[in-house]
This record gives sequence, C-alpha cells and structure tokens, in this order.
Amino acid sequence: MTSIAPHTDDGRVTRIAATMADGREVIYFDETPDAVRVLTDPRDIPPVISGSHVRYDALLGEWVGIAGHRQTRTYHPPANACPLCPSTPTNQSEIPSPDYDVVVFENRFPSFAGGGDIAAGGALFETRAGNGRCEVVCFTADHNATLSSLPPSRMRTVIEAWADRTAVLSAQPGVEQVFCFENRGAEIGVTLAHPHGQIYGYPFVTPKTAAAIQSGQAHRAATGSNLFADVLAGELADGSRIVTENEHWVAFVPFAARWPVEVHFYPRRHVRDLTGLDGVERAALAELYLDVIRRMEGMFDDTLPAITSVHQAPVHAAEEDFRLHLEVFSIRRAAGKLKFLAGSESAMGAFVNDITPEVAAERLREAGRGVGEAVK
Amino acid sequence: MTSIAPHTDDGRVTRIAATMADGREVIYFDETPDAVRVLTDPRDIPPVISGSHVRYDALLGEWVGIAGHRQTRTYHPPANACPLCPSTPTNQSEIPSPDYDVVVFENRFPSFAGGGDIAAGGALFETRAGNGRCEVVCFTADHNATLSSLPPSRMRTVIEAWADRTAVLSAQPGVEQVFCFENRGAEIGVTLAHPHGQIYGYPFVTPKTAAAIQSGQAHRAATGSNLFADVLAGELADGSRIVTENEHWVAFVPFAARWPVEVHFYPRRHVRDLTGLDGVERAALAELYLDVIRRMEGMFDDTLPAITSVHQAPVHAAEEDFRLHLEVFSIRRAAGKLKFLAGSESAMGAFVNDITPEVAAERLREAGRGVGEAVK
Repeated sequence: MTSIAPHTDDGRVTRIAATMADGREVIYFDETPDAVRVLTDPRDIPPVISGSHVRYDALLGEWVGIAGHRQTRTYHPPANACPLCPSTPTNQSEIPSPDYDVVVFENRFPSFAGGGDIAAGGALFETRAGNGRCEVVCFTADHNATLSSLPPSRMRTVIEAWADRTAVLSAQPGVEQVFCFENRGAEIGVTLAHPHGQIYGYPFVTPKTAAAIQSGQAHRAATGSNLFADVLAGELADGSRIVTENEHWVAFVPFAARWPVEVHFYPRRHVRDLTGLDGVERAALAELYLDVIRRMEGMFDDTLPAITSVHQAPVHAAEEDFRLHLEVFSIRRAAGKLKFLAGSESAMGAFVNDITPEVAAERLREAGRGVGEAVK
Repeated sequence: MTSIAPHTDDGRVTRIAATMADGREVIYFDETPDAVRVLTDPRDIPPVISGSHVRYDALLGEWVGIAGHRQTRTYHPPANACPLCPSTPTNQSEIPSPDYDVVVFENRFPSFAGGGDIAAGGALFETRAGNGRCEVVCFTADHNATLSSLPPSRMRTVIEAWADRTAVLSAQPGVEQVFCFENRGAEIGVTLAHPHGQIYGYPFVTPKTAAAIQSGQAHRAATGSNLFADVLAGELADGSRIVTENEHWVAFVPFAARWPVEVHFYPRRHVRDLTGLDGVERAALAELYLDVIRRMEGMFDDTLPAITSVHQAPVHAAEEDFRLHLEVFSIRRAAGKLKFLAGSESAMGAFVNDITPEVAAERLREAGRGVGEAVK
C-alpha cells in the first residue's frame, strides 16, 4: 500500500508514494522538512473506468484521443467539496493528508490510461489502445492561491515533481512523450479552481512536437546547426522580443507569436527534457518563470486565463536536436476581451495575432520595471 | 462607384457590386427577382487602417498573421446599432440598402489586406506583407435568424456567393488560398450576433491544408489512389459514421473526429473548389447542409456554438488531389458544457474527444428520423 522512494535531486524534496482506494497512485513531493503525510485512502470509491483509445487522422497525419468515458468528470464543484484540497473531516478529497506541499496523483478521468495492445486497423482507419497515463499536480494545499503567488522555493518543488514524473512516465511501456502543463482560468475550460496542473504520458508523439522535429531536421540538413540554438541566438542578437533573462534561461516573446501574450523560456544549454537540468538550472527556471508570469498578470486589469506547457523531446526518438523549453500564453487580448480560436485558427490552423510581438515584449519589460523587478 | 456584373451560374442569382464610402467593395447577391439595391454609401467614415503582415514560425513551419490594428474592432454592439443589418434612418450600417438577400463586403478590420511587396528577412525570422483579403458575408437581412432557419434556396444563394468570391479572390495577386467559413455563437468569440460568415483570401497555404496535401501525396505515392476518394469509399463501406447522403454529397462523422459534434461533407465527384460544382451539386449541398446542421442543433437542449469551414485546394499549387469538402463542428459537448482547447490541444495539437464518433453519428441519424427528415 505504501512505498517510500529516495529523496530526489539534492535532497531538498522528499518523495512519498502511496496507493489510493481504487488503486491509483498518489505521490507527495515535500519541501517541508520531516513532513508526515497520510498514506491511507479511507474512501469506498468505484474502480476507475478507462475506455480510451487513439485513432489516426489520415488527412492531417495526427493521432486523436477518443475518451467517451470522461463525460461524467467533476465539473465546477463547490469550494467545500474540492477534490484537490487536503482531506478534512467533512471533505474526504483525492489527497488523504490534511496538508501537503506538492502532490501528484493519477487522474480519475484519464484521457489516456492502461497499456493495452495495438489493435488491428486498415491504413486509413487505424486504431490503437489509448496507452499512457494522466496525472494531476496540485501546487499548494491553499485552494485560493495561484502558482504565481507561491515563492520560488515552491515553484522549484513543482519542477522537481515534473522532472520526477518525466523520468517515471518515460519508463512506462507505451508512453512516447511526457507533457507537463497548467491550464488556468475558467475562460479556457478549467473546471477545478484549486491551483493545479496536469501531466500526460502520451501514446504518440504530439503533432506540434513532430512538426518542430521535422523543422529541426531540415534546419540541421541545411545549416549543420541546431534550430533551437539558432532561434535563441537570433532572439538575443535582435533583443526586441527579449522579456528578461538570467544565467541559465532566456524568456522572450517568439517572433511569430500566435497569442496576444506569449512567452517562451529557453535554457541556454542544450537539454532534451527536464531530467537533464541540474539543481541550479531548476532553481533559475523557478525564479524566471515566476517573474514572467507575474508580469503577464500585470498586463491587463483583468484575470489572466493562461496555459503553461513544458515541451520535451519524445521518449524513444533518436532525435537529439529537440530542446526542452517552456511556452506560456494567455488568451486575454484586452481587459474584458479574449482571443478565441475561431474558424481560421481551429479549422485552418492559421493564427492571427492582434498584438505585435515586439509591443507585447516591451509591455512585459515595462511591467518588470515595477513589481516584476521587486519580485526578482 | 457602381458596377453590375452578369448573372452568376444559371441566372437565378443577380450580382450587383458597389463601392463603400471608404473605398471598400460591397456586393449584393439577390435571389429575389428584380431586387433594387441602394448602391451609394452616404456615411463619412475614415479610411480603413490595414497594418497586417505575416511572419514565419520556423519551429512549426507555419505562417502567422500579425494584425495589431484590429484591437479596436466592433465588439458586441447593441442590436439597434448592428453594422450588418440593412440601413435604416437611425442605423446607417455597412450595407446601404434597406433590404438584401445575401451581401458580401470587405471587412473594415481585415486580418489580411492589401498587396504589398515581400519584405526581406532572415531564414529564421521571415516577414512578408499581409497580402490578401477579408470579407464578411451576411446570410439574411433578418438580424434574429440563423443560417439553419433559412430555406435551401437561400443556402443555395450563399453557396453562389462563396463560389463567386472564390473565383474573384483566387485571381487577386498574393492570394494563395480562399477560405469561406462561419463562426457561430458568442461562446466561440463571435462579437456580431447578425447571421454572417467570413471569407479570407490568405497570402499563404494554411497549415491544415498543407498537411492534408502532404498526406495526399504520400497516399498517392503508396497506393496510386486519391486519399479523399479512398476515405470516402471507406466511410461508405463501413457505414457506421455516415449521417446522411444524397446523390451528390455524403455527410459523415470523421473516423478520428476531434470535436464532440463534427460532420464532414464530401462531394462524390472530385472537385477542387466550389467553382467546380455545377448548379445541381450546389443545390444538393444546400439541402444536405441545412438538414445536417438542423440535426446538430437538435442534439443538445442548448445553443450550438459551431464553426463551418469550406476546405478548398490552394489557388496556385499544381496539386490536383485535394478535394473540396466542408467541415462543421461544435464545441458543445453536453447541455451547459463546452469543449475547450486547453493545454493538450492548444500547445501540443493533441486532441481528446469525449464523444465516440460512431455514437455521435448514431445520434445525428436518430435526429434525422424526427425533425431532420421532415425538414428534408
């Protein structure tokens, strides 16, 4: 029922894993010294239903997940019944403990789960089992906090959890790519207000990663160089889209930004995924990331619905040119106004951005001269 | 100021073009016999500001439009100030006439416009002028109607307008692809309630079309066959995802549907764009399209925010395998619930669909046994 793994990284984070009442795994990542966590889930809950599979879209050359069992998933529960809060006598949540720092557990409504066999299928109608794994990452026990309100030490623990899960999920049969991300804001469909992110272990290489790998290979063939290194060097040489940087990371608005507020974080050193970062680089990312998302939050007199995505190289590909990077974007285009993906974006993949990238970068630099610098 | 073009197609639609006060073009497509339309725009309005350009995303290999001038565009005006209604003494709208059937005019806030030169730019930071054209298509003078409430004869006129604009925009310098579409519902960002669609003349081949062309070429190389023909044959042979069909068109839920409600319309005959359809095929599309969107509207006890997209072959490519087809999808996944594009979809391009395509198709067939069939 309980397993205790060795400390991660430099010993600052304790990792304790346990098994939930329905067999799912829950893992505490604690920076609090000598934290004691409840490892027994007293609930009587039904088994997880996992009926996902993936299908190949022969026109676009992409895999699509089909998860007909997820329609009953938890939808905007009241705060006193939050499944991501620590357990209390009146709310036995997904997390058995009365407190935690960062906790990861398997999603009860997974988009991808299990490790079934590959099914037979014709060339144009190919189906596979929806192998993979979906996890939830709670950033804090405080229901009303946001990731940006947490100290760098906590962000560092989140990064440790991401790196741990990347290593573990990468070793799971059927997982081809590990994706750590945070959806934030009801405006983009978040149905649980508690500050949390998710981790997907995909049974395929995602379309965007596949496209970047293809571009990287073409660039390598044409120039002999790494595409990500050349993009980063170009951004640093130009400077107009740089938001801020430190010894190990550079944050910039991409040249062809799709979203009104979009910032990419590149490590200066070539690393393919989070597991390759050393402790100093993880700490530097935690500081730069919090600095930038606080600047982003300051841009509008309104909430900032946003998505943070950690782009990592596929697990099994021999590909060595793909570089770990983070992308953060918001659908906020002005106070009271959102950028929606309508026909051009959704149906054609053709984005139109209403804010010029250099203007967005300048506004984010300005934000840093106020509260951003103070935070830093 | 005024030009009158010959009747389109079989003479059932009259096409009358005029020039708006700021130089934009407005074109009436009338099925009403001997309709008289006002061609003079009496307004004193400032010139259109067009500052768009496109940038190449070297990582994903896609063009992105940058249109910093669009932030001031009209946003949820009150019904009595609707810019798409016919003009009245108290509301001088974009359409000078007191009535119209279908009218097309150039968008005052274009994502793509003009025909500037290609700008210089490095390989990783390539910029081009935002050539192209953006038009608005009003489906009816009735502010409170929906496209689905209109008779097939009106839908036919809309298709005539789409085909006319496809021919005209395809001949415009700098336009590489013509896209006719309708965004419907405030839930997907529509800011004008009046029933209308849009037409984009893109200065590039859109990413989704480029991907389908690549798949088509690979399929042709591997099998010697047309990909779209083989997909259609496969769907017809399987049958489980067919919604309805007539002599010229087949409507089906695609095998790897990304959206909870998604229907594709394929012509049985190979045609690369709308201009290649004859009158009978246009009429057959009008009937089948209205039948299916009425079924879609009947699926949920709620509104149906939806996107209709007309996929056409690029203007200049020698490509002959791309087949004209329509795709309609809704972000409605249940009454009161929407499918949002969050981290997996937006950042990774990996869709997870909560409704199994065969289940969606069965529900749409069921809907047809009620009101759908009666409508037909």
